[in-house]
Amino acid sequence: MQAKPPYYAVIFSNLLNVDAQGYAEMASRMSELAQLQPGYLGMDSVRDGLAGITVSYWRDEASIAAWRDQWEHAEARRLGRERWYQSFELRVARVERAYDFDSARTE
Amino acid sequence: MQAKPPYYAVIFSNLLNVDAQGYAEMASRMSELAQLQPGYLGMDSVRDGLAGITVSYWRDEASIAAWRDQWEHAEARRLGRERWYQSFELRVARVERAYDFDSARTE
Repeated sequence: MQAKPPYYAVIFSNLLNVDAQGYAEMASRMSELAQLQPGYLGMDSVRDGLAGITVSYWRDEASIAAWRDQWEHAEARRLGRERWYQSFELRVARVERAYDFDSARTE
Repeated sequence: MQAKPPYYAVIFSNLLNVDAQGYAEMASRMSELAQLQPGYLGMDSVRDGLAGITVSYWRDEASIAAWRDQWEHAEARRLGRERWYQSFELRVARVERAYDFDSARTE
């Protein structure tokens, strides 16, 4: 991801229910939709069984608010509470600085 | 995690080398050590094979700097670049707001 700080991160740490039918399809659809949103900068997502962390990156708070209110995403969030998530924590944070390392890069 | 924003998050998104011998022991040791640091608030960590995201939470930037400079952690970071990580991105972010959901809680 090439964006220079400051920008915003939405840190979504979650635990699925044991029966989370339909979750994977929804997650894949939301990942596609997010990429179409203005201000979307990128996403990192890892899941190990029930535990998942997804961090999405956004240009500013307005982009985050617009994504939150996108109708299909709003519906997915409702279903998430109702069916899929045992628990989650959502944090909005302002990225102050960033550093990356690539072992293939000559330094 | 009970801390109220604002506080800080270190978002560490990484890809291991296929041969990352010794990594798991180091990661477990670092998790133990971080908990002893002043200003440590908590950690979320998920790994799926080579891909991992660890987010650690800190009271302030001074706590993050002290942890970065802790000698055993500094050595682990050096070994990480040398042996374990194919690539990583590290971001320091100020958590502005947080929201949590627990399906077991009556709302």
